[in-house]
Amino acid sequence: MSISSRLQAFAQVFDARNLDAFFISCEPNVSYLSGYTGTESYAVLLRDKRYFLTDFRYLEQAQRELKGFTIVLRDKKPYSVMVREICERHGVRRLGVEAGRISFALYRALSRNCPRTALVAVSDAIENLRIRKDKTEIAKIRQSVEIMRLGMVSLASSLAPGMKEREIQAKLEYDTKMFGSQKPAFDIIIAADPNSSMPHAVTGETKVQANDLVLVDMGCVYEGYHSDLTRCFFTGKIPPLKQKVYNTVLQAQELGIRKAGPGVKAKDVDLACRDFIEKKGYGKFFGHSTGHGVGLEIHEAPSVSSRSPEILEPGMIITVEPGIYLPGQFGVRIEDMLLITDRGAEVLTARIPKKLQSINR
Amino acid sequence: MSISSRLQAFAQVFDARNLDAFFISCEPNVSYLSGYTGTESYAVLLRDKRYFLTDFRYLEQAQRELKGFTIVLRDKKPYSVMVREICERHGVRRLGVEAGRISFALYRALSRNCPRTALVAVSDAIENLRIRKDKTEIAKIRQSVEIMRLGMVSLASSLAPGMKEREIQAKLEYDTKMFGSQKPAFDIIIAADPNSSMPHAVTGETKVQANDLVLVDMGCVYEGYHSDLTRCFFTGKIPPLKQKVYNTVLQAQELGIRKAGPGVKAKDVDLACRDFIEKKGYGKFFGHSTGHGVGLEIHEAPSVSSRSPEILEPGMIITVEPGIYLPGQFGVRIEDMLLITDRGAEVLTARIPKKLQSINR
Repeated sequence: MSISSRLQAFAQVFDARNLDAFFISCEPNVSYLSGYTGTESYAVLLRDKRYFLTDFRYLEQAQRELKGFTIVLRDKKPYSVMVREICERHGVRRLGVEAGRISFALYRALSRNCPRTALVAVSDAIENLRIRKDKTEIAKIRQSVEIMRLGMVSLASSLAPGMKEREIQAKLEYDTKMFGSQKPAFDIIIAADPNSSMPHAVTGETKVQANDLVLVDMGCVYEGYHSDLTRCFFTGKIPPLKQKVYNTVLQAQELGIRKAGPGVKAKDVDLACRDFIEKKGYGKFFGHSTGHGVGLEIHEAPSVSSRSPEILEPGMIITVEPGIYLPGQFGVRIEDMLLITDRGAEVLTARIPKKLQSINR
Repeated sequence: MSISSRLQAFAQVFDARNLDAFFISCEPNVSYLSGYTGTESYAVLLRDKRYFLTDFRYLEQAQRELKGFTIVLRDKKPYSVMVREICERHGVRRLGVEAGRISFALYRALSRNCPRTALVAVSDAIENLRIRKDKTEIAKIRQSVEIMRLGMVSLASSLAPGMKEREIQAKLEYDTKMFGSQKPAFDIIIAADPNSSMPHAVTGETKVQANDLVLVDMGCVYEGYHSDLTRCFFTGKIPPLKQKVYNTVLQAQELGIRKAGPGVKAKDVDLACRDFIEKKGYGKFFGHSTGHGVGLEIHEAPSVSSRSPEILEPGMIITVEPGIYLPGQFGVRIEDMLLITDRGAEVLTARIPKKLQSINR
């Protein structure tokens, strides 16, 4: 889908909310509707005119990347005044703003600076378009996954007792960057047992020991598109409790993956994993939601949780990542990315080995 | 300064704005007043009671790091409802919120959910404390600078024609991580001539050629504290125009550094650099501000620009980074970090060679 089809789809909000213009203050949303890949970006969209606001540092990049936008450079005026000038020029009476993506201070400044323009706070207008990925986006996410796969292949061949968590992280970041990742999708988590009992452990100075469980939660960014994956490695013998917990998480995840498909409630995917883990007696050790959408942001709609309102549709890309965390002992999480298709769900990360790997060097 | 002294200093806002409680929605601000180093964090501070709000994933980390806070875990309720329950429990009539750090949607949810509590939007209450660094913070920033220095030493010994921008970036990130950086302070910029003409160029696949200018803008994070530096390298001969532009930026920067000190207006540091560059005829090619504060965030108060309202005070840490960018040709920026002292300013990055380095391998 081209930028212009996206803009066309977005234009419905003008009618739906009776707007003359829409102010976009969220960078990934600006990027989605403009093709601009940098930061420090705002946009004002009218039905037949588009403005892009940035500062001097990004002018040349904006000129290269944007088509059909009038670029307005921030000089001494704050952005709220720049928006007012656009509203006055075009007689904008009702201006949409992004409720969840604009700070209260900026909202207030716009209210004060644009007395003749009513602000209409709209939730998720662009996020609701982004929730279904188009072909271009799916291709970029596939590439982001492929880079991740190459990084994991390299990691699996080098991981060994004696390495520090930080060292493993540094190597994985380096390798994925050399394979084409712009940057890590988030702070990569390398948690050697028992740090793995913290679902979002901070990677540190802990050395991997023999017979350790090492949890690796990582992701890449390719042309703005994120990927996300969790695998557990094992450096030596696998004691029975760890094997049991791992198998429980794996079976729960498989149930979740099997559940996912078009027309299925996202919360039922969560339920499929959660029910199984609860039946096995580990319910209270699985305290986070089962997954989330992935795209221009690492966490986006739909959420895959017990509170999730969304129904899965073709084009959605989600993670399925149940976990069991035994405080002070260890934790296991297994995460894959799924593309919802017309008939079911494709596991985008299927080529990245999931079997609990015992590494003996 | 300990967390408790920071909390004591912050408590003034209760009197100044007649508040019963304050809701903190900005992670670095929560970190500053609590010592918690993770993400997904909110806090509600009362005069004699402190709450920390997070979810299951961060519980164990919060328990380890926090002292004197009651940890409230997010379960099925949104944060706005959790805040309401705290407000009701303590009869909070006036609740401060962070004007620039809370989304309009969260502000609106709090307004709706807390009908008996008036919201008071306060700007920069915690940022105004963070603007002057205490001894602990200065020590961490010094270490962040030292890691950066080690990374630059390593870079200077390896940079050579034939390397891709991305490869240089990957190596610099790897090295600094191994020297102790948590992560890059921002997307490191490696801009080989002519990409250097974009002040915030996106590091890409361009190969460094012989006789290229290579602009490196990088930074580290150590225990949450950022560093920031820009240096230009030269792979071979330095043509007269590049030498002239480099010398102009260098002299401008030296004037800015010399100007900085306690009691000096931040905008006068900007003026010192800008005036000189304008006199040399490059004024329109220096379109960004001269610098910014650095600390728990890479960009924080005070700004060092022509619009800056701040007066420099001991304990402030700023960058001085003028630049000249000739579109389609090349750009030069030189950036150092300064600590404002009782008597003047200490260049924290003084040990990192600034002389335009000609590398011939």
